Amino acid sequence: MSGLDPADLTAKLVRCASVTPANDGALEILQSVLEAAGFDCAWADRGGIRNLFARWGSKGNQRCFGFNGHTDVVPVGDEAAWTMPPFGAEIRDGVMYGRGTTDMKSGVAAFVAAAVDYVKNTPPDGAIVIAITGDEEGESVDGTTALLDYMAENGERMDVCLVGEPTCPENMGDMIKIGRRGSMNAHFRVVGKQGHSAYPHRANNPLNAMVRLMDRLASHELDQGTAHFDASTLAVVTVDTGNAATNVIPAACTAAVNIRFNDTHSGASLSAWLEEEAAKVRKAFGVEVSLKIKISGESFITPPGALSDLVSRAVEAETGVTPQLSTTGGTSDARFVKAHCPVVEFGLVGQSMHQVDEHVRVEHIHQLKAIYGRILKDYFA
Amino acid sequence: MSGLDPADLTAKLVRCASVTPANDGALEILQSVLEAAGFDCAWADRGGIRNLFARWGSKGNQRCFGFNGHTDVVPVGDEAAWTMPPFGAEIRDGVMYGRGTTDMKSGVAAFVAAAVDYVKNTPPDGAIVIAITGDEEGESVDGTTALLDYMAENGERMDVCLVGEPTCPENMGDMIKIGRRGSMNAHFRVVGKQGHSAYPHRANNPLNAMVRLMDRLASHELDQGTAHFDASTLAVVTVDTGNAATNVIPAACTAAVNIRFNDTHSGASLSAWLEEEAAKVRKAFGVEVSLKIKISGESFITPPGALSDLVSRAVEAETGVTPQLSTTGGTSDARFVKAHCPVVEFGLVGQSMHQVDEHVRVEHIHQLKAIYGRILKDYFA
Ligand SMILES: [Zn+2]
Ligand SMILES: [Zn+2]
Repeated sequence: MSGLDPADLTAKLVRCASVTPANDGALEILQSVLEAAGFDCAWADRGGIRNLFARWGSKGNQRCFGFNGHTDVVPVGDEAAWTMPPFGAEIRDGVMYGRGTTDMKSGVAAFVAAAVDYVKNTPPDGAIVIAITGDEEGESVDGTTALLDYMAENGERMDVCLVGEPTCPENMGDMIKIGRRGSMNAHFRVVGKQGHSAYPHRANNPLNAMVRLMDRLASHELDQGTAHFDASTLAVVTVDTGNAATNVIPAACTAAVNIRFNDTHSGASLSAWLEEEAAKVRKAFGVEVSLKIKISGESFITPPGALSDLVSRAVEAETGVTPQLSTTGGTSDARFVKAHCPVVEFGLVGQSMHQVDEHVRVEHIHQLKAIYGRILKDYFA
Repeated sequence: MSGLDPADLTAKLVRCASVTPANDGALEILQSVLEAAGFDCAWADRGGIRNLFARWGSKGNQRCFGFNGHTDVVPVGDEAAWTMPPFGAEIRDGVMYGRGTTDMKSGVAAFVAAAVDYVKNTPPDGAIVIAITGDEEGESVDGTTALLDYMAENGERMDVCLVGEPTCPENMGDMIKIGRRGSMNAHFRVVGKQGHSAYPHRANNPLNAMVRLMDRLASHELDQGTAHFDASTLAVVTVDTGNAATNVIPAACTAAVNIRFNDTHSGASLSAWLEEEAAKVRKAFGVEVSLKIKISGESFITPPGALSDLVSRAVEAETGVTPQLSTTGGTSDARFVKAHCPVVEFGLVGQSMHQVDEHVRVEHIHQLKAIYGRILKDYFA
């Protein structure tokens, strides 16, 4: 291993208790490493969130490669269940343990180390942008969007971007994400008329309408998948009433559904469909149905092409594994970056992320740095 | 008004805070009134509940008319919402206020006063049994059943029985209950497989099965009613999950239904139907469905005939109103009495029962005593 040690850097970051939205010095560690390597750093803080923008090379029309990541982490959870200190970055049998070791302080450390080494050894004819937020695991309102807003306001740009989130389901190198399905939640409330369960005709049971509506939604096939996307899915995640009295027909009940949708749909088209289904039971059952929709992200894709080829070749060269191009999984900040430039995501095996005893193989951090380094080399070649 | 004042007696009973299962001296007041009139009294206490059995006349094969009632009351509820003291029995503008004024200390006072006056003025050629429990509003396990068990063990009997519960929906005299629908509750639990809502095919959402099952149950027509009964009804009273995380498909959910059924069905036939429906979704969705059934009471009827004619005639004579013979409403202790002898229920207008500011018109207590007295006179004529 030569140059900046990405495992050392990962350990330093893990020792910052940057549970979202806290930063605890994590981004300042990266700032000092990047500034020492000649990056211009700036803070794109917003809403109490620290966000670090760094650029090597001059801004302007030259080729520019971007990296995006986050240093905030999800809470520790059941701390008693951890067998290793969650902010200790302790290494045992070649495995480093701690919150953020997988998601994604190692990814950030790997691309920062790769970029620092690369500009030092082979100063490119172009620019490298590194944008790191402290608000990915939380509201994601003042994180990558704040960085992109900062870039727009300050004439900063990038031609392509790689998000360093963990993307591999089983083995190092087995998956690149070229897009994501959209995600939205809909919260339903049905209000009928309370009454005694001995006289249902004097009441209007909101549950009758609710179970019909939820059965219709859950049974509906949204689509069968598209060229690059799995089929869209709808999950009824909760139905609640909270009525302990079996002799009472409740006045109201609630439910929530989560939809993951591909490019057949949009948040707007699905909202219209949900409103239509709500209107049907409203009419059929004579109840009030209200509906609050929150669209977490539209579906997006960077179709297979130059960028995914570049990343695939580097992964294959370093791991011997041919990565699958996928659009599976939840949302990520790539949904924001997509509005700015083509974006793909590649990183570690994500199995232990958000879990107790989150961990990473130390050699995988080095391998990831090597992949990122090769991507830079090939991009500027 | 002559003889024992049923309003005075009601007030004395209301001033006992006999919130089920407490007695607070209520039954002892009745015991002393009945013993003074020549009734033999005995305690049929069980499980910590006081139950008073009283008989005028000798036991044996002579004609015997029975009265049944309860002195326990439901809790006060929101005491701050009462405008009158709940155990004060205060009278304002001819209306007495307090918990139990309608349900059913006035009913008990009316039949006790009617019986006491009747045996004093016209000692009948027969017997009168008065059975009063302190466990009707609670579990109903050690109340009227304990009294009936006591009677069986001690060679006590009655030929017919009148339960003095409030039965009139609108006006004094407008309804006699000749039976009741059965009532049962079924509690469902569906267990699937928890998972991330982005990957529903890796999970098995128990809500999909639950909403289908509940929709099937709620949509099913049990029957269209019978000669003396309304149609049976099923109410889905609650569906619950308690899952606040929209990205998680829950592992399990629960629901409860209440069924009120006529003589087309029995608790057993409906249990078999529910098990069958549960088996269908168990098979269709590959989930576990467990089912706990509690049968509160089977349907029962005392078909229109001698007893209902006797009560109807007395009601008409005293009120000018022709009572409807009905089987509507929830369960009552008549379901236990039915196993012993023909039983009907007649009492006050029940509108304020179980409510804040429960109340009764004082003149209605006197009218009810007159009706009960006329029933005794006609029965032994
Ligand atoms: Zn992440
Ligand atoms: Zn009652």
